[in-house]
Amino acid sequence: MITKESLITDLHKIRAKAPLVHNITNYVVMNNTANALLAIGASPVMAHAVGEVKDMVKLASSLVINIGTLSPAWIEAMIIAGKAANKRNIPVVFDPVGAGATPYRTHTARQMMKECLLAVIRGNASEIMALAGSKPSTKGVDSIAASHEAVDTAVMLAKKTGAVVVVSGSVDYIVSQQSIIKVKNGSPMMAMVTGMGCTATALVGAFVAVNSDYFHASAHAMTVTGIAGEIAAENAAGPGSMQIHFLDALYNLKDEEIVSHFNIE
Amino acid sequence: MITKESLITDLHKIRAKAPLVHNITNYVVMNNTANALLAIGASPVMAHAVGEVKDMVKLASSLVINIGTLSPAWIEAMIIAGKAANKRNIPVVFDPVGAGATPYRTHTARQMMKECLLAVIRGNASEIMALAGSKPSTKGVDSIAASHEAVDTAVMLAKKTGAVVVVSGSVDYIVSQQSIIKVKNGSPMMAMVTGMGCTATALVGAFVAVNSDYFHASAHAMTVTGIAGEIAAENAAGPGSMQIHFLDALYNLKDEEIVSHFNIE
Amino acid sequence: MITKESLITDLHKIRAKAPLVHNITNYVVMNNTANALLAIGASPVMAHAVGEVKDMVKLASSLVINIGTLSPAWIEAMIIAGKAANKRNIPVVFDPVGAGATPYRTHTARQMMKECLLAVIRGNASEIMALAGSKPSTKGVDSIAASHEAVDTAVMLAKKTGAVVVVSGSVDYIVSQQSIIKVKNGSPMMAMVTGMGCTATALVGAFVAVNSDYFHASAHAMTVTGIAGEIAAENAAGPGSMQIHFLDALYNLKDEEIVSHFNIE
Repeated sequence: MITKESLITDLHKIRAKAPLVHNITNYVVMNNTANALLAIGASPVMAHAVGEVKDMVKLASSLVINIGTLSPAWIEAMIIAGKAANKRNIPVVFDPVGAGATPYRTHTARQMMKECLLAVIRGNASEIMALAGSKPSTKGVDSIAASHEAVDTAVMLAKKTGAVVVVSGSVDYIVSQQSIIKVKNGSPMMAMVTGMGCTATALVGAFVAVNSDYFHASAHAMTVTGIAGEIAAENAAGPGSMQIHFLDALYNLKDEEIVSHFNIE
Repeated sequence: MITKESLITDLHKIRAKAPLVHNITNYVVMNNTANALLAIGASPVMAHAVGEVKDMVKLASSLVINIGTLSPAWIEAMIIAGKAANKRNIPVVFDPVGAGATPYRTHTARQMMKECLLAVIRGNASEIMALAGSKPSTKGVDSIAASHEAVDTAVMLAKKTGAVVVVSGSVDYIVSQQSIIKVKNGSPMMAMVTGMGCTATALVGAFVAVNSDYFHASAHAMTVTGIAGEIAAENAAGPGSMQIHFLDALYNLKDEEIVSHFNIE
Repeated sequence: MITKESLITDLHKIRAKAPLVHNITNYVVMNNTANALLAIGASPVMAHAVGEVKDMVKLASSLVINIGTLSPAWIEAMIIAGKAANKRNIPVVFDPVGAGATPYRTHTARQMMKECLLAVIRGNASEIMALAGSKPSTKGVDSIAASHEAVDTAVMLAKKTGAVVVVSGSVDYIVSQQSIIKVKNGSPMMAMVTGMGCTATALVGAFVAVNSDYFHASAHAMTVTGIAGEIAAENAAGPGSMQIHFLDALYNLKDEEIVSHFNIE
């Protein structure tokens, strides 16, 4: 069970330890996810060269892999990094951006699942369904299915891979082999900012770096992301100011705000 | 003729349909252009791998190609994607960033024009002149000529390629083989934000996705960009806040604001 | 000696001449550094293709090289560009992001120092120590040593390479073979924004473009960065708004603000 208190404990741990989170992510969101990790108190590093990912991952407390803008050398580096992380029991968080949109992405995402042991997979409903071989129902990188439609698939995927599967949407489903948590925090304005899902994935990276219960860590991360989104949306005049307020909210997040906004089942 | 009403009609179509705009663009502006496309109501996707552009472009309603940060694999992907779009009558919008600055860019830009049928070419005066073989007069990626100086060249280029040619500057010239529209909307503060031209190009991508009259669609896009820039500049304390207000203005753009700001000839 | 007046003179020169600064930098910060260069009045260009860097650097008044997100083709381009700049006496500013974190970065940074004549090297304490062969003490791309701990190393490095060495931190040390300047401007909030160090390096690029005394130019750049950071932090609610206010402050920077904030030894 996750509680307000368990979330606050993890958040304080992140701020105290500033765990190094190694990201191999897409060009569109690199700046945002680095800033979100800094804002929550973690220490981000971006490195993707085949010649250095093995060395970088050794220094990290978690590895975040995101396939948003792929090319062959990046795929090679992702797999090398994932395997190096596995060898050292460093948790790997995976974001299959756009799986289902093109065979290239779907294939790469499945290859990652096959070659690396993943701690957490976070995607929207379309992406999660594509991973499991369902007929793709995606529009570019945006889902055209609601998160609840992918829950059964997520359970199957969790059983098959051992990973915690997070299906994000207006309600986020955190799915393990045994249990499901529903996170109801968040704001529709979050979908108007590019890479908000990628940011959530990066924040999962911060939480699994301090909590080896990846199911709980994932739920904590999605809740914090949603709460910061709600606080940001209150004052945002549109998607531009939303981005800025989101980072400010994440940085300033108070225990009381977590207590008052916490909305999970 | 374009009118306030024709612009509003297109804008409502974008918001209703959320057309998928496939972008192969530069690293500097990816985040900005994705956010601008979301703010106006379109659905952006960024994908550049040689192994997937053909599949991605099939899903899209338009393709935007921008050569701001080139390298060989990207050029190859741009041409593959452009040809795939041509095959399916998906309009291709092209931004020859920095053409004229280096032979590499000028050559690549001309190669794109030769190998792909372009619906719209948008550049500053220097870039447009460089495409047509005029002596380059560029400073890096910034023009040192005024937009009106490139109008004759733009007409020639429109006749030669069949594309609508947009020369942007303090006045934007939208040039087809038969006609010219002058868009006078905009703010000098827009030039203080990197990639505002690239954003305009991306927004052209959104309009050609819903209006097959590319001449009108381009004029609509440049007008909306200029109006959002004017509204943003009113409240901007500098180029940092300008960026944020621009996205907010684009997202919130009301029919009445279009009516009151509309400034074309 | 640097003074308020010498700084103001350089800043006015940048605004008057808008020197072209060629950047080969990392994906995370490209947008930020381009915007910071525009805000201070310079003209940024990003270009990294092996096939064009030689041509682009010829047009530039300075070259900024930053190894934040490396890969083999980028390293090759950095060296080609650095050598081309050397041939034409265009100053090269180098940012060894993450040197010490992985052998790949440390090796690349040393290779740059060996193959190119550098005008300025700017890094945090860990990076500067790694360049000189001290035992690495880095956490990803963040330093775990204070800037004063790297001053002796910086002096040694300045003597060995002829470059001005800038060790940034809560106090910035500008180190030449003969002298040291301490810049005390800045705000702790700057460290909460990703790439603020990279931005400082880019701004050094703007100052060396107008002042051939690279020691003074570097001190001017670090002071301006620090002052803009202080002004931004006054009104920032967190790291999100900090970024925005920083660009606005840089753009609006008044002579009087320089006079009142100037804090060097």
